[in-house]
Amino acid sequence: MTDTVDLTLEEADALARDVLEAWGLAPDHAAAVAATMVAGERDGCTSHGLYRLLVAAASVEKGVVTPDAVPEVSEPAPALVRVDGKGGFAQLPFARGVPLLVEKARAKGVAAMALNNVVHFAALWPEVEALAREGLVALAFTANHAWVAPAGGTRPVFGTNPIAFAWPRPGREPFVFDFATTVIARGDIELHRRAGKPVPADWGYDAEGRETTDAKAVLDGAMRTFGGHKGSALAAMVELIAGPLIGDMTSAQSLASDAGRGGSPLGGELLIAIDPAGFLGDRVEEYLAHGETMFAAIEGQGARLPGARRIAARRETMERGLRIPAAFHAELLDLLQKGKTHATTGPARAASGGNDTGDGAAAD
Amino acid sequence: MTDTVDLTLEEADALARDVLEAWGLAPDHAAAVAATMVAGERDGCTSHGLYRLLVAAASVEKGVVTPDAVPEVSEPAPALVRVDGKGGFAQLPFARGVPLLVEKARAKGVAAMALNNVVHFAALWPEVEALAREGLVALAFTANHAWVAPAGGTRPVFGTNPIAFAWPRPGREPFVFDFATTVIARGDIELHRRAGKPVPADWGYDAEGRETTDAKAVLDGAMRTFGGHKGSALAAMVELIAGPLIGDMTSAQSLASDAGRGGSPLGGELLIAIDPAGFLGDRVEEYLAHGETMFAAIEGQGARLPGARRIAARRETMERGLRIPAAFHAELLDLLQKGKTHATTGPARAASGGNDTGDGAAAD
Repeated sequence: MTDTVDLTLEEADALARDVLEAWGLAPDHAAAVAATMVAGERDGCTSHGLYRLLVAAASVEKGVVTPDAVPEVSEPAPALVRVDGKGGFAQLPFARGVPLLVEKARAKGVAAMALNNVVHFAALWPEVEALAREGLVALAFTANHAWVAPAGGTRPVFGTNPIAFAWPRPGREPFVFDFATTVIARGDIELHRRAGKPVPADWGYDAEGRETTDAKAVLDGAMRTFGGHKGSALAAMVELIAGPLIGDMTSAQSLASDAGRGGSPLGGELLIAIDPAGFLGDRVEEYLAHGETMFAAIEGQGARLPGARRIAARRETMERGLRIPAAFHAELLDLLQKGKTHATTGPARAASGGNDTGDGAAAD
Repeated sequence: MTDTVDLTLEEADALARDVLEAWGLAPDHAAAVAATMVAGERDGCTSHGLYRLLVAAASVEKGVVTPDAVPEVSEPAPALVRVDGKGGFAQLPFARGVPLLVEKARAKGVAAMALNNVVHFAALWPEVEALAREGLVALAFTANHAWVAPAGGTRPVFGTNPIAFAWPRPGREPFVFDFATTVIARGDIELHRRAGKPVPADWGYDAEGRETTDAKAVLDGAMRTFGGHKGSALAAMVELIAGPLIGDMTSAQSLASDAGRGGSPLGGELLIAIDPAGFLGDRVEEYLAHGETMFAAIEGQGARLPGARRIAARRETMERGLRIPAAFHAELLDLLQKGKTHATTGPARAASGGNDTGDGAAAD
């Protein structure tokens, strides 16, 4: 018996959809969520890949998500789109809103979309990348659970509050970044905890607000924002524009609504899309080429563009398919069975390790 | 003789306008530029206060700015405003575009404004703050001169590329931040150079791409972005959306166009304004209160909000007026005379120290 299993992207997608449907997701939700997980696995972001099936199933079991919610799209203003996710996962609401967001961005020059009342467990990059594939420049922001202290403080206020950006590149994969506004991903702290390893003293504080190198103490205390007061300012901005601005919860409110269940965070997301043709008219090609000159100046000195590692992994996967550990594959098949049992007999532990670590943002 | 001079804000404004008009600025330009400088001085941002009169005069003398440019406002798309600054300072084009930007943000929910072909020497916070006073949430971005290396590289690609944000607070000064995406302000490196002091090794590289603690070597080499690869990603975003996206120059193009004159950078600026009423309708007050809860959670643990120092300085100035060094006041009177001479006899050195340091963003 080999210790890995090879899957085509289609096979991985079918398996993911099967698991999600077994756990009660409506087929359109399962398809949207599976596509995001398979994209993560394909791009080498294993923490945002098929592993998230365990997280999603755990959120269903904990009752923090409505697996068959029917998203409702509305137009609160001529350049605004709102999708009420009705407590379901964010992927389907995003997909349902995109056509209108794209249409409005092209018609008005700039448009914004709020996803409200959605459960978010995934990276933001698949969303902004999808908009860049439509030729738009896109920004996305989401708050989550209050785990992060502001600069100058030691008690949690912010979520890991990721920021994602995408820029269309003619004939190439879009330029995309997506990062949490924390020093380090929450999942990395969790890995240190499991391994019994100390964390660097600048990752966070314990529940009494003291510096600590104990991973569990940081998880129970507060993480730090990246980049000192500047990262903290950005985290505050994300908190405001992905929460109150769109009529949704702050990270503190979202954590309170979780009520200790440890599910993926319920809340809002803000997307902004700008059509380059709005300002550039028929000179889009000419000015996108100036962007390419900048990218060449970065890569020409040996520096890596954000997302470059993901794109390299994507190319490799497209050629060779996916390869996952056999034990993990067995775990997914087990999760599939548990889902079927769950559907007929009610709650049973979805899986170990299904707590959401809040790493909505990939490392790059 | 005392070594300080007291000025009311009105007196400072009149002096600033006199100097700027003496240096050839049209009265409407002089009024807009003076208002920004006096606001900086009032808020204790002395590096962005009346000191910038020297910088502005130097830019006139070096021929990098058109002091009497007539800005042209247009509407490239229903939610977009463009102001062509025609090579003049940015303040008047901003002021000319604001009414239409505000109108569009309220009508469409979100709107964006590009300032093109403007010379920028000031912080961005006065602009986003002005929009927040209209009840809007605002973002601003501008590139400048290529002085900053991307993470993983050592050669300049980006400008200091500030990001500014403002959020309206009922009954209070808006929440505002404005920071360069660099580790440190260029002006701080300049101060170290003048004082003959070494700089920390993580501030930048020399022209050969080596780590250095020599301030002049960093000024001639490359500064670093803040926050590692995350800050670098944000700097790239600013470069793209305040340059190519709006049909304007990148920092490399802007530096090239300066052709060694050392003037304030010519280029573009992007502003995005979102009306909270767009998503919130008649629940604006309720949701802005949730923002206030977040601010209280930050301040309640002894952490300072971005901009708090400025607002404290502002309150003090409003009570006591401005107090500037007598030597600096004399320098400004001298600059006024030189401007009058310049107007009648042509170029003469505006002032020492008038090189633009590119610190378009205030420290907080």
